[in-house]
Amino acid sequence: MLIVMEQSVPEERIAGVIEAIEAKGLRAHPIPGASRTAIGITGNQGPLDPAEFENLPGVVRAIPVTQPFKLVSREVKREDTIVKVGDCTIGGGAFCVIAGPCAVESERQTFAIAHRVKAAGAHMLRGGAFKPRTSPYSFQGLGREGLMILSRARRETGLPIVTEAVDTESVDLVAEHADVIQVGARNMQNFSLLRRVGRTKRPVMLKRGMSATIDELLMSAEYIAAEGNYNLFLCERGVRTFSNHARNTLDLSAIPAVRRLSHLPMIVDPSHGTGTRDKVPPLARAAVAVGSDGLMIEVHDNPDRALSDGPQSMYPDQFDALMADIRAIAPLVGRAV
Amino acid sequence: MLIVMEQSVPEERIAGVIEAIEAKGLRAHPIPGASRTAIGITGNQGPLDPAEFENLPGVVRAIPVTQPFKLVSREVKREDTIVKVGDCTIGGGAFCVIAGPCAVESERQTFAIAHRVKAAGAHMLRGGAFKPRTSPYSFQGLGREGLMILSRARRETGLPIVTEAVDTESVDLVAEHADVIQVGARNMQNFSLLRRVGRTKRPVMLKRGMSATIDELLMSAEYIAAEGNYNLFLCERGVRTFSNHARNTLDLSAIPAVRRLSHLPMIVDPSHGTGTRDKVPPLARAAVAVGSDGLMIEVHDNPDRALSDGPQSMYPDQFDALMADIRAIAPLVGRAV
Amino acid sequence: MLIVMEQSVPEERIAGVIEAIEAKGLRAHPIPGASRTAIGITGNQGPLDPAEFENLPGVVRAIPVTQPFKLVSREVKREDTIVKVGDCTIGGGAFCVIAGPCAVESERQTFAIAHRVKAAGAHMLRGGAFKPRTSPYSFQGLGREGLMILSRARRETGLPIVTEAVDTESVDLVAEHADVIQVGARNMQNFSLLRRVGRTKRPVMLKRGMSATIDELLMSAEYIAAEGNYNLFLCERGVRTFSNHARNTLDLSAIPAVRRLSHLPMIVDPSHGTGTRDKVPPLARAAVAVGSDGLMIEVHDNPDRALSDGPQSMYPDQFDALMADIRAIAPLVGRAV
Amino acid sequence: MLIVMEQSVPEERIAGVIEAIEAKGLRAHPIPGASRTAIGITGNQGPLDPAEFENLPGVVRAIPVTQPFKLVSREVKREDTIVKVGDCTIGGGAFCVIAGPCAVESERQTFAIAHRVKAAGAHMLRGGAFKPRTSPYSFQGLGREGLMILSRARRETGLPIVTEAVDTESVDLVAEHADVIQVGARNMQNFSLLRRVGRTKRPVMLKRGMSATIDELLMSAEYIAAEGNYNLFLCERGVRTFSNHARNTLDLSAIPAVRRLSHLPMIVDPSHGTGTRDKVPPLARAAVAVGSDGLMIEVHDNPDRALSDGPQSMYPDQFDALMADIRAIAPLVGRAV
Repeated sequence: MLIVMEQSVPEERIAGVIEAIEAKGLRAHPIPGASRTAIGITGNQGPLDPAEFENLPGVVRAIPVTQPFKLVSREVKREDTIVKVGDCTIGGGAFCVIAGPCAVESERQTFAIAHRVKAAGAHMLRGGAFKPRTSPYSFQGLGREGLMILSRARRETGLPIVTEAVDTESVDLVAEHADVIQVGARNMQNFSLLRRVGRTKRPVMLKRGMSATIDELLMSAEYIAAEGNYNLFLCERGVRTFSNHARNTLDLSAIPAVRRLSHLPMIVDPSHGTGTRDKVPPLARAAVAVGSDGLMIEVHDNPDRALSDGPQSMYPDQFDALMADIRAIAPLVGRAV
Repeated sequence: MLIVMEQSVPEERIAGVIEAIEAKGLRAHPIPGASRTAIGITGNQGPLDPAEFENLPGVVRAIPVTQPFKLVSREVKREDTIVKVGDCTIGGGAFCVIAGPCAVESERQTFAIAHRVKAAGAHMLRGGAFKPRTSPYSFQGLGREGLMILSRARRETGLPIVTEAVDTESVDLVAEHADVIQVGARNMQNFSLLRRVGRTKRPVMLKRGMSATIDELLMSAEYIAAEGNYNLFLCERGVRTFSNHARNTLDLSAIPAVRRLSHLPMIVDPSHGTGTRDKVPPLARAAVAVGSDGLMIEVHDNPDRALSDGPQSMYPDQFDALMADIRAIAPLVGRAV
Repeated sequence: MLIVMEQSVPEERIAGVIEAIEAKGLRAHPIPGASRTAIGITGNQGPLDPAEFENLPGVVRAIPVTQPFKLVSREVKREDTIVKVGDCTIGGGAFCVIAGPCAVESERQTFAIAHRVKAAGAHMLRGGAFKPRTSPYSFQGLGREGLMILSRARRETGLPIVTEAVDTESVDLVAEHADVIQVGARNMQNFSLLRRVGRTKRPVMLKRGMSATIDELLMSAEYIAAEGNYNLFLCERGVRTFSNHARNTLDLSAIPAVRRLSHLPMIVDPSHGTGTRDKVPPLARAAVAVGSDGLMIEVHDNPDRALSDGPQSMYPDQFDALMADIRAIAPLVGRAV
Repeated sequence: MLIVMEQSVPEERIAGVIEAIEAKGLRAHPIPGASRTAIGITGNQGPLDPAEFENLPGVVRAIPVTQPFKLVSREVKREDTIVKVGDCTIGGGAFCVIAGPCAVESERQTFAIAHRVKAAGAHMLRGGAFKPRTSPYSFQGLGREGLMILSRARRETGLPIVTEAVDTESVDLVAEHADVIQVGARNMQNFSLLRRVGRTKRPVMLKRGMSATIDELLMSAEYIAAEGNYNLFLCERGVRTFSNHARNTLDLSAIPAVRRLSHLPMIVDPSHGTGTRDKVPPLARAAVAVGSDGLMIEVHDNPDRALSDGPQSMYPDQFDALMADIRAIAPLVGRAV
């Protein structure tokens, strides 16, 4: 159920509705909008009766929400969510490019790449300090030391930092250093982690799981929003299919499908989505043209020596060329780079 | 094995090499190129020895071909194949838009749509006369009468016709009326049909099967080429996965993957690839940006009454808008509309 | 719509109902049952009104059929279909084992294997004379000569022959020599072929396509039944998924799913379903236990020299051991070997 | 690398080899076997030279391990692992049936079901106290209270308890009450959780992820073993494919595939594997026949009112009948129920 309040309604009216909701043993989620406030209700078993709420002072309408996800649904909030990260913007007509190495390997490497991607026009720096790896014997990231390097790279370049939290234990540490907390594909249904990042104040980027439907992705986003964190955007990174010419099958139809159902921005990761460097530029261009809100791209100054995901990392020169393509295509689909 | 001949070698030298190949019980496929002729050899069990051929007069080199597909492989022919259909071109920097109804339903409907898509800038007219349908009780197409309507629509509009042959029995009839014979996804491994269209002189469009790998698609193309028909291009139309927000999962990474392995042009069908009208324009734009050689789009003047695939057919006005997008994006990726 | 006739109704009553159906421009399919006859109606656009038929003399009830497949649906015919092939039976409590080489390679090989599988207890002999192969350069089968060898093998051993028809051109020739015509996975939606085998009088085995849903499989069976051939059984042979430890993913849940929806028997092909010899016995045992009506198994006397599918062909000794397992498990699930 | 020690070698020899391994900056994993001890080495970048270890006193051979997983690999340990849980055994010829409700809902419900499944012959009781749910608004389990109920159910019935740990925070609490800690499909690559359960002394059941390959499953098991916990078994529960007649596609070929690669026991969960009650018995029988080491089955005394997964929970009477089938089939494949 979504309660739509009158425009410019005084705060105490909102507080009164929240109180009434909580008195019924339900949970109220105020969602401030540009013109008016709405209040999402969750926690009900079965449908609620709109009449129970429409008589409360200040309420315009009570709208039943038919989707299993509510707070992230477009039924509940019609306008696009816009996530602000420092001077950068994700959603609402902006096109945001996040670039950097798969893993933070050293200060030298991180700074070198950060300067290169900034010069090329990237808006944020990505880099993994905690790496979820299929094998326990693979490089697992520099951990805390990696986060410190990222912090210093931000100081050096001004680029906000996107980095992954792989477990509840490291969320606070990551939140301290990161501008955007990434939840990776393998953790898309790690519900404890979702709740935990939902309780931070940091923007969150949630990646689609390898075999997740759009509904499941939005339900996972709902876990984060239900804890009060609406600074949230999604990332398509390819799904697992029989198709064997690429590491994953990048599902670009997810972009219009999500836009229809949800107000959350969604970017695309063609590096994981394809798994090989030569396929990243064409799929990155396609991701712009399909109407996504941004890209996340792996760039390495020496991919052949990268400690992880070398084959899918672009050379800096390739990235320069790609940024030129992005700048040309984005305006044609109503996006400002 | 591929035999590369000297530039401007006289015809009798080529004939001599062919004779030598056939004398060994193998099959020779002369492949005329812009600058020189090459001769593909097929029919061998196990590897051939280059030395057996390199001493023949006029031969520059004999190159073992490592891919299971040979004639359609880039190893065998480096330059892009360009397919000419009337005044239209597929491949080699052109961007070709094929549009029209899913099925030919009547002369009125076909002419109306043909005029609309021509006015919008489409290069060819699509329309099914023989329809492969999951149910024996669904509309199976107008058959011969549908082909006649298409012929008249070509006379009316000048647009070349693309239409499907669903079995060996109908190939001759289709070849008589069509400018391009379509082999559909369900028939991608109907090898008798492939051989049969390979023996016509008509250009062929081969669609990727619902769960075909790229290698299998190229092996099917090889069946056509092995019969002597090199006027051949491919079409990505989505594959079947767990993903349930679209009818199929459009696999745009197939475009760069095929380009690397084969000299054949490849277009994209976002209508079948998504299954709903509102997803066609974003995915069509993405298909331009990813570097494909064209699009095949279903357009209907009254989609809600279409006898097949109504929900994925665009309204003519939507198609006008899409053509404008295509014209804007194509030049950015080196394609002339 | 299904018309259920009174028990022991005279023939002219049945003829009268058929006439009434055809007078409405519909098609009537008499389905004789053990105790009474039913008449399926197809060809209607949209639902029919039962009242139109229930007043006809001899009619007990007119039942609307909700599934898109009708003649093969359990709604239309409650009792299991039993297919008789010589002395063998598929369905209705029998458990039928079809074994033999992937391809007929020579008389010597075929006879040797036929004698071995007969001695082990197989009920029918399989062997491909026409082989649908991914590559045009692979062994395509001995064709007519292969069929003659199979005919002679039947004379030698008494085993009925199961062999594949790959195109409409070869159906008559195959029907002349085969006891069961196989339609392969790649041809499951080759609708012309389905119609053509539907017009023969031979029993047909229809294999599930590599990415076909159960509904699509039953719709394809409906194509055959709609032509009047009800001597029809199905075969699960694995579907294509991301899973890479086997050639295909054998989907044994298809057996109870089909049994619920259709009266047609269904067997399992664990040779194609797994792709490696060592996985065939465990999956074959599982196929018995899940309640299928039979197995189709590739056996070769020299698998390492087989011209196709060697790695998945069992050694004759392994097949002996498997038959012992089958004989032990089948009675536990109500099947007589 | 695996170091094979002489039979009956004195402890100090083993200690000496471990010391030598650690002196090289590597990690030693002593693996006591029935007849002799082996020592796995992990932590190396690139291959090790066997000669470096074969001269140490007490060493018979140093064997390079080619699989990415080592401790769980059959190359490292040839004999089947046998996991002991109270009086129950998983692996080594035993067939273990774990049954119970999806979620612990109340003491009454849990006790009633526990008594019923014990009477039917189940060996352990399953029941979720912490439930990972797609929606934040679904019933998330009774938590600590659920664990207390399970503990009391064990006291009542003597059945060991299998229950899931969903995050690192709850592992200690779960380990206190559970006899087997379950790691669910969604957490198969929650590497922090894997490490954490690897540090408990409790047996662990690891479920295959929805789109995990066998290699990935074994790598996740390796995370647990690498922390020193070898009391470990696996569970196939269906994978996600295009196939839509069942909730998941149960991949029974995983059983022989894992057996070849690993010494770990593997059971099957046909309840999640199919998603509907009527498909559980046939697939459970198939799972016995394919050679698995056990079953996990959801049983509920009132499935239509179950708080989760009602449609896939069996009625107690159905479970009685299934146990009879299991007892009949298991001995035929060398398993003692």
